[in-house]
Amino acid sequence: MRPYDLIRNKRDGLAHTADEIRSLVGAVTDGTMPDYQVAAWLMAAFLRGLNPDETLALTLAMRDSGDIVDWGDVEGVRLDKHSSGGVGDKATLVVVPLLAACGVPMLKMSGRGLGFSGGTVDKLESIPGFRTNLSIREARDQVRRIGAALLGQSPALDPADKKLYALRDVTATIESIPLIAASIMSKKLAGGANAVLLDVKVGRGAFMKTLEDARNLAETLVRIGNGSGVKTVAALTAMDEPLGYAVGNSVEVAEACRTLTGRGRVDERFRDLCLVLAARGLVLAGKATDDNSARTIAEKALAEGAGARKLAEIIEAQGGNPAIVADPDLLPLHTTVLRVRTEKEGFVESIDAEAVGTLAVDLGAGRQRKDDTIDPAVGIVLNRKTGDEVKAGDVLADIHVRDEKQPAAAVAADTLRSAYRIGSETQPRPIIYDFVTE
Amino acid sequence: MRPYDLIRNKRDGLAHTADEIRSLVGAVTDGTMPDYQVAAWLMAAFLRGLNPDETLALTLAMRDSGDIVDWGDVEGVRLDKHSSGGVGDKATLVVVPLLAACGVPMLKMSGRGLGFSGGTVDKLESIPGFRTNLSIREARDQVRRIGAALLGQSPALDPADKKLYALRDVTATIESIPLIAASIMSKKLAGGANAVLLDVKVGRGAFMKTLEDARNLAETLVRIGNGSGVKTVAALTAMDEPLGYAVGNSVEVAEACRTLTGRGRVDERFRDLCLVLAARGLVLAGKATDDNSARTIAEKALAEGAGARKLAEIIEAQGGNPAIVADPDLLPLHTTVLRVRTEKEGFVESIDAEAVGTLAVDLGAGRQRKDDTIDPAVGIVLNRKTGDEVKAGDVLADIHVRDEKQPAAAVAADTLRSAYRIGSETQPRPIIYDFVTE
Repeated sequence: MRPYDLIRNKRDGLAHTADEIRSLVGAVTDGTMPDYQVAAWLMAAFLRGLNPDETLALTLAMRDSGDIVDWGDVEGVRLDKHSSGGVGDKATLVVVPLLAACGVPMLKMSGRGLGFSGGTVDKLESIPGFRTNLSIREARDQVRRIGAALLGQSPALDPADKKLYALRDVTATIESIPLIAASIMSKKLAGGANAVLLDVKVGRGAFMKTLEDARNLAETLVRIGNGSGVKTVAALTAMDEPLGYAVGNSVEVAEACRTLTGRGRVDERFRDLCLVLAARGLVLAGKATDDNSARTIAEKALAEGAGARKLAEIIEAQGGNPAIVADPDLLPLHTTVLRVRTEKEGFVESIDAEAVGTLAVDLGAGRQRKDDTIDPAVGIVLNRKTGDEVKAGDVLADIHVRDEKQPAAAVAADTLRSAYRIGSETQPRPIIYDFVTE
Repeated sequence: MRPYDLIRNKRDGLAHTADEIRSLVGAVTDGTMPDYQVAAWLMAAFLRGLNPDETLALTLAMRDSGDIVDWGDVEGVRLDKHSSGGVGDKATLVVVPLLAACGVPMLKMSGRGLGFSGGTVDKLESIPGFRTNLSIREARDQVRRIGAALLGQSPALDPADKKLYALRDVTATIESIPLIAASIMSKKLAGGANAVLLDVKVGRGAFMKTLEDARNLAETLVRIGNGSGVKTVAALTAMDEPLGYAVGNSVEVAEACRTLTGRGRVDERFRDLCLVLAARGLVLAGKATDDNSARTIAEKALAEGAGARKLAEIIEAQGGNPAIVADPDLLPLHTTVLRVRTEKEGFVESIDAEAVGTLAVDLGAGRQRKDDTIDPAVGIVLNRKTGDEVKAGDVLADIHVRDEKQPAAAVAADTLRSAYRIGSETQPRPIIYDFVTE
């Protein structure tokens, strides 16, 4: 079937066969289907949707569009972990070392920041000397040696996703659940995983704003995973306020280190999320039979410092200074601080995560354009979180800026203050809403 | 507003302002909006639709994307005539000379064949020596001198339509009523018309298959015309069987000549359509106050040979041999004839116009690919039309082919025979369904 006919059929709401989708992805990958035809198909797919069979077929065809990682003689379940993205989400930096410390091999590829949401690779690169561009062979050797590697996405994997994503990004076709799910899962499958732990964020600091949308995405992801023989679990977790205290790059690495060592200020909700995810990972990897026993194992690894030691090992193996784990003050951080105070009294009712994330990007912690360089030493450290009581004059947050005179810095304090809603109510705030397993 | 935001808004079903549409068309025309973004917008517009205000704004922005024809000191109403396209539709070749003979100046630009539907420019070029590529200045001088000119679309007019149409053609976004209407009317308006007579074809030989779709298109066209200050009338006319007897290029010119001279076999339904359209044109041009008096004027011009003389004048002015009007056998026509007979008895219930048009294209009368050359001497001449009685052994049609051995010729007789449905019923067949004036 010609690309034209595929566009017309999708335009008319017809379903594609698996063979048709495979030929479409082939034509996208080898460039025989021109961008304008791909763009028209993407918009038709966005508006008409893809059914579960089409979504699975799209994922598998995208997986097969490039190399598939061969984990070689790495033993055990090949577990991958993925977050759909949020503000202050440094959970990978805690969960991966914890799982590796518990004997689950982790060859973890991550992405860069996207919009107001940070990226694990950008965060890792705030550790001076740390190399994220390991080859698959290097990563595999490292996993065999010390149990874990943290690296960027290999350019040889899933070239179809790169082409499709780049086009979706400029044609307003990002926010489609089937297209998002195929993009996520094809990369996980190309990474050679046979078990996947997903953290689907929901709230105004996430791409999915409502629990209904997030559940829909989670179900689609899990259906694809299970449909392709990969055991998949998705957690639905809160992303209304930023996760933890820190938003930026080095400040988030520092917070991950403190969470692993227990030294310094630790956000209990963030710590709890990491333990819940690690426990589910242990069950998926066959290291525990249920969440309760898994939680005990994860808590022990955290309390005894095994997770912290594993992170230091990973950092050392990849060229960074392992001493930052025990002493996060060694990380780069601008000393020019804008201290944000409030004149209000009451309780923090909410903190607009998207506003905080956007501010961090504006200050240099993320990219406005694809070729922007990131300033790893910029960061926002919240002092009050949702549910906390505040009094007039209290410090809400510290903002570490490169230069007080940069335009974003001039309005930063006001922007951050406006992100806080302070009122008289305080409500319980679950961090985990639910798990989706089928 | 950036192109991205326009795509997103249309994707979400929001209406664009006139300024937004003007910036979109500007970005399409100057190439700053890349093809893949235009394609995504086209698919969003196809599926979400454009409201009447958006459609009018799109038409006006397209009109203004290039030159607008200046008719200079040509006096009177500047009338244009347009057919939405069908099989065997040579009405322009009759109506334009008739109207010009009645004193209505006609600077008529036409298109080439499209799919199974022929084009007036291709037909005119079957007249040896006939020049269709007049400059606007030449055409205007000719209209001033002899009252009419028949030419191809000037490439300086409506460049936005050229870009949009080329993209729609490869992205399955042709069949959208607002996009079709904007494409037609922007060209008419760029042609400098201040009155437009539209012939919207309906049936299986037309782009609009149902009366409902055709009426919808007609109403959209008329609304655009009247909304831009151009008096517009649309006839809804039948296109189930081919129009007249001839389908091809020289054979259609010959039939137009015979209709104007009254010599030889004339299809009364086709002749009636031409007179109805000419009469409406006279009313639009202010040469008559009502259809009845206008019809009398048009019939007189036809009966007295004024239309035929005007066509000869036009042909002579544009480098062709005017003797073909009186003697159409001077036109090129292959003498290898496949005679198609039937073994059935009864009445012709229908003739599938699309099948006949496609056969003509396959034989060389149209283009399969954009750069194909047309063979003007190929043609199909029907001998029996819908409603005619047939006996076993009767000739249904003659097919003039270049070479009996060409692949299309080998199956041509069977294909044409299959296009005829012969049964026991004969029903009245209106040629005009309705007029849409607002």
